[in-house]
Amino acid sequence: MSGVFDHPWLSGLFGDAEMAAIWSAKADLARMIAFEAAYSRALGAAGLADAAMAERAARAIEAARIDMDAMRDGTARDGLPVPALVAQLKRAAGEDAGAVHRGATSQDVIDSALACALRDTGELLRDRIGILRTALEALRVRFGDRALMGRTRMQAALPISVADRIETWARPLDDHLDRLERIMPQVTRLQLGGPVGTRADLSGQGAAVAERVAAALGLAPAPQWHARRDGVAEFAGLMSLISGGLGKMGQDLCLMAQQTPREVTLSGAGGSSAMAHKQNPVAAELLVTLARYNATQLSAMHQALVHEQERSGAAWQLEWMVLPQMAQATGRALAAAAALCDAVEQIGPSSENAL
Amino acid sequence: MSGVFDHPWLSGLFGDAEMAAIWSAKADLARMIAFEAAYSRALGAAGLADAAMAERAARAIEAARIDMDAMRDGTARDGLPVPALVAQLKRAAGEDAGAVHRGATSQDVIDSALACALRDTGELLRDRIGILRTALEALRVRFGDRALMGRTRMQAALPISVADRIETWARPLDDHLDRLERIMPQVTRLQLGGPVGTRADLSGQGAAVAERVAAALGLAPAPQWHARRDGVAEFAGLMSLISGGLGKMGQDLCLMAQQTPREVTLSGAGGSSAMAHKQNPVAAELLVTLARYNATQLSAMHQALVHEQERSGAAWQLEWMVLPQMAQATGRALAAAAALCDAVEQIGPSSENAL
Amino acid sequence: MSGVFDHPWLSGLFGDAEMAAIWSAKADLARMIAFEAAYSRALGAAGLADAAMAERAARAIEAARIDMDAMRDGTARDGLPVPALVAQLKRAAGEDAGAVHRGATSQDVIDSALACALRDTGELLRDRIGILRTALEALRVRFGDRALMGRTRMQAALPISVADRIETWARPLDDHLDRLERIMPQVTRLQLGGPVGTRADLSGQGAAVAERVAAALGLAPAPQWHARRDGVAEFAGLMSLISGGLGKMGQDLCLMAQQTPREVTLSGAGGSSAMAHKQNPVAAELLVTLARYNATQLSAMHQALVHEQERSGAAWQLEWMVLPQMAQATGRALAAAAALCDAVEQIGPSSENAL
Amino acid sequence: MSGVFDHPWLSGLFGDAEMAAIWSAKADLARMIAFEAAYSRALGAAGLADAAMAERAARAIEAARIDMDAMRDGTARDGLPVPALVAQLKRAAGEDAGAVHRGATSQDVIDSALACALRDTGELLRDRIGILRTALEALRVRFGDRALMGRTRMQAALPISVADRIETWARPLDDHLDRLERIMPQVTRLQLGGPVGTRADLSGQGAAVAERVAAALGLAPAPQWHARRDGVAEFAGLMSLISGGLGKMGQDLCLMAQQTPREVTLSGAGGSSAMAHKQNPVAAELLVTLARYNATQLSAMHQALVHEQERSGAAWQLEWMVLPQMAQATGRALAAAAALCDAVEQIGPSSENAL
Repeated sequence: MSGVFDHPWLSGLFGDAEMAAIWSAKADLARMIAFEAAYSRALGAAGLADAAMAERAARAIEAARIDMDAMRDGTARDGLPVPALVAQLKRAAGEDAGAVHRGATSQDVIDSALACALRDTGELLRDRIGILRTALEALRVRFGDRALMGRTRMQAALPISVADRIETWARPLDDHLDRLERIMPQVTRLQLGGPVGTRADLSGQGAAVAERVAAALGLAPAPQWHARRDGVAEFAGLMSLISGGLGKMGQDLCLMAQQTPREVTLSGAGGSSAMAHKQNPVAAELLVTLARYNATQLSAMHQALVHEQERSGAAWQLEWMVLPQMAQATGRALAAAAALCDAVEQIGPSSENAL
Repeated sequence: MSGVFDHPWLSGLFGDAEMAAIWSAKADLARMIAFEAAYSRALGAAGLADAAMAERAARAIEAARIDMDAMRDGTARDGLPVPALVAQLKRAAGEDAGAVHRGATSQDVIDSALACALRDTGELLRDRIGILRTALEALRVRFGDRALMGRTRMQAALPISVADRIETWARPLDDHLDRLERIMPQVTRLQLGGPVGTRADLSGQGAAVAERVAAALGLAPAPQWHARRDGVAEFAGLMSLISGGLGKMGQDLCLMAQQTPREVTLSGAGGSSAMAHKQNPVAAELLVTLARYNATQLSAMHQALVHEQERSGAAWQLEWMVLPQMAQATGRALAAAAALCDAVEQIGPSSENAL
Repeated sequence: MSGVFDHPWLSGLFGDAEMAAIWSAKADLARMIAFEAAYSRALGAAGLADAAMAERAARAIEAARIDMDAMRDGTARDGLPVPALVAQLKRAAGEDAGAVHRGATSQDVIDSALACALRDTGELLRDRIGILRTALEALRVRFGDRALMGRTRMQAALPISVADRIETWARPLDDHLDRLERIMPQVTRLQLGGPVGTRADLSGQGAAVAERVAAALGLAPAPQWHARRDGVAEFAGLMSLISGGLGKMGQDLCLMAQQTPREVTLSGAGGSSAMAHKQNPVAAELLVTLARYNATQLSAMHQALVHEQERSGAAWQLEWMVLPQMAQATGRALAAAAALCDAVEQIGPSSENAL
Repeated sequence: MSGVFDHPWLSGLFGDAEMAAIWSAKADLARMIAFEAAYSRALGAAGLADAAMAERAARAIEAARIDMDAMRDGTARDGLPVPALVAQLKRAAGEDAGAVHRGATSQDVIDSALACALRDTGELLRDRIGILRTALEALRVRFGDRALMGRTRMQAALPISVADRIETWARPLDDHLDRLERIMPQVTRLQLGGPVGTRADLSGQGAAVAERVAAALGLAPAPQWHARRDGVAEFAGLMSLISGGLGKMGQDLCLMAQQTPREVTLSGAGGSSAMAHKQNPVAAELLVTLARYNATQLSAMHQALVHEQERSGAAWQLEWMVLPQMAQATGRALAAAAALCDAVEQIGPSSENAL
């Protein structure tokens, strides 16, 4: 209840329902279940388990009702939820338990589920960037040819047009879409390595199993990547590039609202408990906050690159503490920026000031 | 649900029920209500409102049932929950609404509530440090005179005693207690300034009002401090010093568990979903993770020192995103470290190896 | 003298002569001079100055002897070196001073010079990655088929081959080369905008001038980008991805050297002032240090994305404090990693242990 | 040459000659030499070496001419300069070499020298804080009773006095002085532990030797602290608290300079290479930059708390990369803030606007 994204009232400011859904425990559990079911079927298809037994196991996995207390206790004991989850799935599979998780390991489940979460995140970010791009273009059309005092080093310099400033906000978005397209294939990859990453328990059928599981989950097959975290860190970096650029937009709007006369008027700006006359540029401030938040969190994601040996406990867990929050901050920033565009009633001192 | 501290299963590893309670929305609301009630009474005592009316208002505040949806909507609109809260409290007070919040502002409510949360946090940390101190001393008594290979730069150097290493973990704790004692008075201070920090609306009775509210909340009266955040950042720094030192202890224990033969044996070490023979030093790894997490978050708290003018929106909100998490990470680290001490079955290769 | 990269003795450990040369003041001055000379010629070619006068100005710029004390004093006064530099160049050009810097501004000079530095950095990184790739491949050929204890969560798990571990170090390098190829065009772009980014003083010849200057400097022409820093921050992110992955390799090697029996033997490992028998894996430790350093610095580069209005003083200067250091840390990490490969005398307990 | 503090021209903006002198290689060498000489004498006084021989060794150490190339090569080989330094000192001592460094180790030399550097740093910071305190008080006397628009969330709120704002800048300074007084004894402590921190090679005379060396260096004797870095990290935290508060002052002044009409007029504000009419608040921006720089670096100092076993190579080196820079940034911030106060020609719109 103390995290701003899920908080009873702070979520009103920080929360992003769509992104929160992607990173919710419920969705994560569904992704892990999907992995295990697909894995059982792949064992069957590869001849590593009887095909009918594997299919029965997969269905039992999909139908299993997960005891969350046991998951919690298991995570406390093992440092991760997979042993407790697998124990439940095996019980659910009963006599078919031999076709459950055999040859896989915790990181395969968790990191493949992560890959699915990043895919959904990437798609949501892409959609949101598109919406924001459109909203900025609409602003440009409405106010672009007005004059605005250009400011360098926080001091009045020379006049520019409103379009000039909007373009500085908008142009990075096109590049972010390109970046997203390039980075997505790096992270939407199945993780499958088994205990130490060698797929040794899959009797030479590792590639075949990986291909089937990947296809079922909508991921690309790939060599195991659990001990190299550059893809995940790069994705985090892109999220911080996005929120950072929006932080610039937010800071600009705060400064425009502060000028006398105001250079921007926003509808629905926030009230004060003490001063009825005030209009606070709430969403613009939020963009600055989220930018600085992600700029901080990114450091943890890069610290986690020092992921020792075949799997680090400490470095891996650090990602869990940080990455879902970065995704929600980024999603929220994009939504807030688009809403901010829509809330603009006027930019530039007045229409007579057109260039 | 995506934050590790409140997560359905990850909280088994990361969660700290006592610290979570301090930083819960419920406790925060109770602290804000306590401020408002004390404030109404102080207005009455200072002659700024009719005393009976003020008392009635205070009781209405204390009895008010808060509509959380309205709090959430208000936070979305205003960037903070206080206007929505005060509106509800005024409605609850009815004709006595004139004795509610008059002359105060959002930061007075939120930062005074924060001061109370930091006080409770400090007390819990102090208790936990004491427990850990005792647990380490017990370890020293049990195993202190055994030999251990001293290692510098990760390489075997010369023998030390187990006590030598334990002392490196224990000594900072005494200093942390001193630090806590010195820092606590810096943060357990009432914030009361009114809209722009001048207490201008309190008709010269600002100091009197502040003294009464502070007394009621168990805080010290102080000049307004909302735009200087050094106390809060220093407290965060102490939390990261604590978790950082425990990270060293955790890293040492991970390395000791990795040696052949093992230099430490832990009961209840975590299982693997793939390798039944493994015993993972889950709690020791966790200490490293939490240390690196706080080391990252601290940067945000120091970025938030650049708190512009009479109150920053952006910098203030950044604290909200980070500080409750740091407290929970620190609380959890102390609890995990004490549990780890209790789980030690043996340190040092064997009893024959005594120095 | 206090920075580790230039320090009389610490540079022995941290210094990278080639990368230091790219980021030296001398090279930076040469790049700024090259910009100004190209700019004067472009003014001439575009008809914004008499062509012969522009050529004379360009030659005077190239021949000018720069008074470094004046540069230093000017930077103290103006916050950046360009006004002082331009004043000297105008004096050098004498009667042709009208063809010097006219219509350009400080950010055009400094950021275009930065683009050149990043290009040279990228090329050096690319070469170094290739060298390291080859060195790792040689290691794989020599020792790849030996057995090594796979370790997860810092505990012995199951045997892997030496090749398995080397591949985790090597595979990210291929992706880094791809990343470099994609990111380079984003940063090797001319910056030309004039005082507020509009090229307003170039009488409609902005694009023509930009194209000529870009061609002369080996950069791509582009719209002004001085107030959007995503390209620069992304480049910094790639550097931290590189050093982070090498930090993993370094940490693995430290841990391998710590095992009994040693899993790696390194020639030339560092001595101790107190213990003659010790061999410290100096270069491996250094990789961890540099990884954590860049992971920290990257946060500043992302904070600097909040670059307000048409040019931020504060955010821009923050990059100057951080980016050259990141480049040197990354260059050094790649060189140290390659040297470390060459220093490996043996990996895996012994040849009899071949899988 | 690429570090801003020592850079041919950027040092004009970022450099702080007094602080640079404290952290210079020259001063560091002098401190290491002082340690070794005091240590030799202490060996003599404690009967661990012939007293006359020890005195001769100490004099030889003090007179030794150090070959910096050998120091650099040694650091490259050993990861630290001490083995190379000690070899030279032993050669200088000739037959008395037995009274040189015997029983000490690298960390004793480097960390004791660090303690001296932190003491000198603390004293300089204390002096500078005092100067700034005086300068702010002078500002308050000159302009304190003028009216200023109070601003919350970057928007005009209600009038305050200039004194109100100045107090927000000044009050933390008093607390910083208190903090400094409390923290200084935590860091001005001799480090003496020998190879693994046990003083085992000092034949039970460890305490006696430590007391003498400490007295000679002006430090307090203390148990070895090389593997616990909380004191050093806390000192770094204080430096970032200082620069962070000054960042707030800088940001406020930038915003005051941006208002129309200007709320502050500064003499000697920086020029633009393109716009002669501009006056950039160079020193105010610099305060923001330095605050954000230190806020970033502090994260590395806290990452370095995870200092494994009896001595970490990787974590220790990380401090070397960061701490001297933080000291210089903090020193520069204090100097720039005081200069900024002196440069204020007017605060508040005009004298008629007095409250």
